[in-house]
Amino acid sequence: MKIVDAKVIVTCPGRNFVTLKVTTDSGLTGIGDATLNGRELAVASYLRDHIAPLLIGRDAHRISDTWQYLYKGAYWRRGPVTMTAIAAVDVALWDLKGKAAGLPVHQLLGGRARDRVMVYGHAGGETIDDTLDDVRRFVDAGYRAVRVQCGVPGLPSTYGVGHGGPGPYEPAEAGAAPTESVWSTTKYLDVVPRLFAAVRERFGPELELLHDVHHRLTPMEAARLGESLLPYRPFWIEDPTPAENQGAFGLLRSHTTAPIAVGEVLTSIWDCQDLITNQWIDFIRTTVVHAGGITHLKRIFDLADLYQVRSGSHGATDLSPVSMAAALHVDVAISNFGIQEYMPHTAETDDVFPHTWWFSDGYLHPSEEPGLGVEIDETLAERFEYRPAYLPVNRLEDGTLHSW
Amino acid sequence: MKIVDAKVIVTCPGRNFVTLKVTTDSGLTGIGDATLNGRELAVASYLRDHIAPLLIGRDAHRISDTWQYLYKGAYWRRGPVTMTAIAAVDVALWDLKGKAAGLPVHQLLGGRARDRVMVYGHAGGETIDDTLDDVRRFVDAGYRAVRVQCGVPGLPSTYGVGHGGPGPYEPAEAGAAPTESVWSTTKYLDVVPRLFAAVRERFGPELELLHDVHHRLTPMEAARLGESLLPYRPFWIEDPTPAENQGAFGLLRSHTTAPIAVGEVLTSIWDCQDLITNQWIDFIRTTVVHAGGITHLKRIFDLADLYQVRSGSHGATDLSPVSMAAALHVDVAISNFGIQEYMPHTAETDDVFPHTWWFSDGYLHPSEEPGLGVEIDETLAERFEYRPAYLPVNRLEDGTLHSW
Amino acid sequence: MKIVDAKVIVTCPGRNFVTLKVTTDSGLTGIGDATLNGRELAVASYLRDHIAPLLIGRDAHRISDTWQYLYKGAYWRRGPVTMTAIAAVDVALWDLKGKAAGLPVHQLLGGRARDRVMVYGHAGGETIDDTLDDVRRFVDAGYRAVRVQCGVPGLPSTYGVGHGGPGPYEPAEAGAAPTESVWSTTKYLDVVPRLFAAVRERFGPELELLHDVHHRLTPMEAARLGESLLPYRPFWIEDPTPAENQGAFGLLRSHTTAPIAVGEVLTSIWDCQDLITNQWIDFIRTTVVHAGGITHLKRIFDLADLYQVRSGSHGATDLSPVSMAAALHVDVAISNFGIQEYMPHTAETDDVFPHTWWFSDGYLHPSEEPGLGVEIDETLAERFEYRPAYLPVNRLEDGTLHSW
Amino acid sequence: MKIVDAKVIVTCPGRNFVTLKVTTDSGLTGIGDATLNGRELAVASYLRDHIAPLLIGRDAHRISDTWQYLYKGAYWRRGPVTMTAIAAVDVALWDLKGKAAGLPVHQLLGGRARDRVMVYGHAGGETIDDTLDDVRRFVDAGYRAVRVQCGVPGLPSTYGVGHGGPGPYEPAEAGAAPTESVWSTTKYLDVVPRLFAAVRERFGPELELLHDVHHRLTPMEAARLGESLLPYRPFWIEDPTPAENQGAFGLLRSHTTAPIAVGEVLTSIWDCQDLITNQWIDFIRTTVVHAGGITHLKRIFDLADLYQVRSGSHGATDLSPVSMAAALHVDVAISNFGIQEYMPHTAETDDVFPHTWWFSDGYLHPSEEPGLGVEIDETLAERFEYRPAYLPVNRLEDGTLHSW
Repeated sequence: MKIVDAKVIVTCPGRNFVTLKVTTDSGLTGIGDATLNGRELAVASYLRDHIAPLLIGRDAHRISDTWQYLYKGAYWRRGPVTMTAIAAVDVALWDLKGKAAGLPVHQLLGGRARDRVMVYGHAGGETIDDTLDDVRRFVDAGYRAVRVQCGVPGLPSTYGVGHGGPGPYEPAEAGAAPTESVWSTTKYLDVVPRLFAAVRERFGPELELLHDVHHRLTPMEAARLGESLLPYRPFWIEDPTPAENQGAFGLLRSHTTAPIAVGEVLTSIWDCQDLITNQWIDFIRTTVVHAGGITHLKRIFDLADLYQVRSGSHGATDLSPVSMAAALHVDVAISNFGIQEYMPHTAETDDVFPHTWWFSDGYLHPSEEPGLGVEIDETLAERFEYRPAYLPVNRLEDGTLHSW
Repeated sequence: MKIVDAKVIVTCPGRNFVTLKVTTDSGLTGIGDATLNGRELAVASYLRDHIAPLLIGRDAHRISDTWQYLYKGAYWRRGPVTMTAIAAVDVALWDLKGKAAGLPVHQLLGGRARDRVMVYGHAGGETIDDTLDDVRRFVDAGYRAVRVQCGVPGLPSTYGVGHGGPGPYEPAEAGAAPTESVWSTTKYLDVVPRLFAAVRERFGPELELLHDVHHRLTPMEAARLGESLLPYRPFWIEDPTPAENQGAFGLLRSHTTAPIAVGEVLTSIWDCQDLITNQWIDFIRTTVVHAGGITHLKRIFDLADLYQVRSGSHGATDLSPVSMAAALHVDVAISNFGIQEYMPHTAETDDVFPHTWWFSDGYLHPSEEPGLGVEIDETLAERFEYRPAYLPVNRLEDGTLHSW
Repeated sequence: MKIVDAKVIVTCPGRNFVTLKVTTDSGLTGIGDATLNGRELAVASYLRDHIAPLLIGRDAHRISDTWQYLYKGAYWRRGPVTMTAIAAVDVALWDLKGKAAGLPVHQLLGGRARDRVMVYGHAGGETIDDTLDDVRRFVDAGYRAVRVQCGVPGLPSTYGVGHGGPGPYEPAEAGAAPTESVWSTTKYLDVVPRLFAAVRERFGPELELLHDVHHRLTPMEAARLGESLLPYRPFWIEDPTPAENQGAFGLLRSHTTAPIAVGEVLTSIWDCQDLITNQWIDFIRTTVVHAGGITHLKRIFDLADLYQVRSGSHGATDLSPVSMAAALHVDVAISNFGIQEYMPHTAETDDVFPHTWWFSDGYLHPSEEPGLGVEIDETLAERFEYRPAYLPVNRLEDGTLHSW
Repeated sequence: MKIVDAKVIVTCPGRNFVTLKVTTDSGLTGIGDATLNGRELAVASYLRDHIAPLLIGRDAHRISDTWQYLYKGAYWRRGPVTMTAIAAVDVALWDLKGKAAGLPVHQLLGGRARDRVMVYGHAGGETIDDTLDDVRRFVDAGYRAVRVQCGVPGLPSTYGVGHGGPGPYEPAEAGAAPTESVWSTTKYLDVVPRLFAAVRERFGPELELLHDVHHRLTPMEAARLGESLLPYRPFWIEDPTPAENQGAFGLLRSHTTAPIAVGEVLTSIWDCQDLITNQWIDFIRTTVVHAGGITHLKRIFDLADLYQVRSGSHGATDLSPVSMAAALHVDVAISNFGIQEYMPHTAETDDVFPHTWWFSDGYLHPSEEPGLGVEIDETLAERFEYRPAYLPVNRLEDGTLHSW
């Protein structure tokens, strides 16, 4: 089964997506997501200009060899652009192999290890009361796990706040430049424990509560946050501190038993090797699209399993339905699944990427069709032209550039 | 001094180069190298499509803030494409600041800490005798340090071999796909000690001898190589094993006192933090172009200085003369300079990038002009159209994809 | 730009200051602070007798080389006298380079990374009520962060107490010998949590509260203090225990998540290397004047940045306005600024050192003039003759000499 | 016994010495050495301007309290100037206490733990043959231990070379500025093993051979040197690498069993705490004059004894006979004496400082007179006026400032 075509499709049905479509001499096609939020065209170029020519004539079945060929063969390894491009190829080849085998991808990964995939949604509101209302909407929609964020009094805007209920939402904003938000750790640390207290009191002990710090604290600030949330039983505290220095999580870990999740910005197993092998975290949140595809993500989760670290993949709207389909096949097949983030796409996006995975009662279910169970409607995709969009940047009150 | 234009220039005067040219409302211009060998257009897109629009209107003097804006503001951090794009901006801004101040860039970095910059050249040959002849040519040209590589008997081709003497040479080959070379660790480890013995015997105790393993050994194989070369006093053994798992160098270090150099593929301080702070290496080879520019490279070298690790920056022909100019300003200003790699460019490249640094008697000397002391001849650059080219890939004798 | 004169000026406009003034053949002059509180003349001698003769004829632009020449060249390294003398030279050379470039010093350091520099003032009072009144005066003056100290019942005098509101105050006292104060850890640990409770209750959750232990506790006593203050959200606890044995902070850290600041007595990066690289502290308080000048202080802060340790430079009145000017240029340029201590000088001091940095609304703003933006009025300086003055010493109630 | 006078005497009988003379109301006087080579007047000022006034009226018997008063009371701790000044006071008070008790100082330290103090002399020569001749002169003079250094071929001058036999020699040179020497590690490492082989072959297995690297290697270079000297049984390898980062000696230690000595530049127990408690060194070379006097030096040696680290105090000519007298009292009294460096002073120096310790058969013997057994002839001292002198600085062949 030789590859005869590799096409990069950029479309913007509500937000930008980059998709790789691989065609073989057998007539089968496979698709992979290559979307890197705010840096989409660099990945498109990486694929179109540097990788696509190399794919022509290759045996689509040799997934591992192709992975190594693109990873080691590029000489310059790792990083979001490279690993997203490799991921797109890898996922497309798994889609092809599934179709060639007549099996859904999770069957090729060893088959179902569970029946369904628990997800969490994003609840938020300007005030604690607004957030409680939003959590109610998720609970009513069947969610068993909800990420809760609320506005920080005294700040003009806050990460994770600004929409209502389990519909589509997109943090990247179209425009010539990123919006700039303002951050105060002091103000933030004052409100979050009160939010958790209120949510736990209102919704009782069973609802799983998550929270995303979004890389904004030092390890010691995060430790204090962890201690302050522990009485309200957080499911996890996400991205408490930047992860370039993995050792920072060792310090955090030594000061609180609060469960820690990290990984949406990590692009290779090397970026989380210390985090995992030292059990400094509880959940690893790497994604199929930014961490090298199904082949590499499975390696990360398998390593994590050895150390009782569970999966908790990133699943914001910057993952196209192609990536969500792939993620669900992985989620259902691994031993150490934890939870899957889930933000619904716009109707336009769902139209461009018709798929057969489905949500029910707080769980997602992967497709049982051969391959991934998701396609791209190229004609429709063409209608939605790329629009520049950026994720926000974040500054402290004195103007210092801070992690967003 | 506000930025009014940021232009990406792709040219191929013998090999491909990507250059960023930043123009300010003061009329001053600054340039930065953005060349990522074999993945050039992805960086060009990253700059043109995602970064250039953000530069317009920014204060060219705020280098640190711009660096953080591009690094933290991208959300997706690190990696060769991202860090090369950021480097291009950073170097262009230092060029501009130097011109605005009327000072060469090294003056802004604290001024000269030494008079001149020792370089090493690349000697190689199919046989040990050929290599001896080639070393002779470098010695005759004034070099005090030479990297020696020779063909491995029984392998069709070998890394680092295939040219004669201190003229231009380019490992990347134009074409639709990478060439594929074959590797045998057994055969390689058999020949290198004999090569070193022969060179040391012929050229006496003073000539500095370097060797590049090019990531192809395990740490324990590298330890055995180190022990076998020690009697011939290697200046360094480069890239003995892949660097994603920094701890592997700890293992290597515990088994040999041979000097170790690593870093041309590393793109951030986080990639070498353990290598440096544990003193597992002797030389850090990160470059101004792939490791985030002057701002970030200086951070890496300053950290290294605390741990008696010296610089030894990558300087193959994939660094454009813009990067070489920048490297020399850093080299001459830091406390812990070790050595600078140097491969001359083609005459065409030198014409496209007129510059005032110069070679003499085994040393390079940075420009004393304001800024970097290098410009780009855009008219000439336009004549040399981009040609796809790839670095080779490498396979074991059984077909396994191996590090090139 | 060759140095033609290096002059040491000792003056006492309210308190003693030692200033180095360097003149070049270009006619430009640069100044650096060399004040070591209570040991001023030893530094003056170090500069006048041993360093000044070496400066004549040197290239003022070679800051790094001069730094190494004075540090490594002295053979006897580190320590307050040596590092303060080197700092004076280093700061004077940066002042000169800025003037030569026509740029304020922060532009040479990479440019502004923030708009303004948050400071904290020193509130204190004999009783908790007195202290509350004093905090009110600072809040009314626009401060957003206040250090709070109060008298310890049962002790005749207490560190940090004895003035009212944000005017000038000087702990060093003129006289033939230091005053001797008395210390009781038991009595101290009894009052501080009550002070914090009262201040937090009165001023609400946003005001940043700092406290200075001034080296007087063991790590375990400090851990208990940290735990007792945590409910009142301290911004930092300063100098909880002496820092010669850096490992003591590891012990402290393992017992409390309270934020820790240390460093005004540390004179080199080696004195805080373990503190920083182990993340045992949250704020590093080294100063431009006692820690080797801008060149070395920037090294310390850059190292700290890798480990999420923020700056919080000492800024008592023993820093002359020259050092405060230099500190502000560093503060505004580094990535990891935390807070700047600020005690206003007497009017006489401000007259001797005319400067253009300014305070507004709880923030300081560095000068935008070329160089540091501060000069010395030598004629006026001559009017204020040196007067011996000492910092106090401290004894336990049984007469034991204790850390002051 | 109250102190009524504290006088600082600067004299230059061949080289500069600073001496503190303390007089008490009992009529007894004590003296202490305060010489900091090349930075003498800064210490003189520290003593005269800041410490002497504090001594008047103090009880001369309270040595420990005075030590803490000067150390903790200065607020700014450690470093060569401070610790040398404190040392001078401390030694003078021990001299006084001995005289008051009618006992030599070693009796106050617990009495003799050994009969005599083995010393080593400094042999050197331009060539290996010259060095062999010089070693012969020392052996003939009764020395049982000799430090051997020889000229490095290709370098214009070398540390430790340039005199003949066991007479006086002084590395500091009078003049307006330091001389600048040139260094090449490559050339150095080539010659030293050959020197050791030659000396060991000529003088047989019993002579103790020492070598001083003088801070010029990295830990790994030092490890290679250690391995190369091991076959010739070095007594120690001194100052192999700079000691600011104590951990560097851990790395060195893990690579060679060669005995390591360090400490002449260290001024406090904190500077060698890790070196000792990890047993990374075999000999600690701190001196009575630069490490805070007898009180503090004894603390260092006592700590070292716990870890089987032996003493090996610095004893170059920059130690005045006052310090040598004090050193011998310590040497003879501690449990873990190793060896004492010994360089004879000029006849003029011996005249200015009449003393009763004596050399015989390779050993020194401390005085048995009350106190230290050394005085200063103030009338004679006045005849020798201070002359500025500097230790050399050292540069690499490319002009980089290197450790001398």
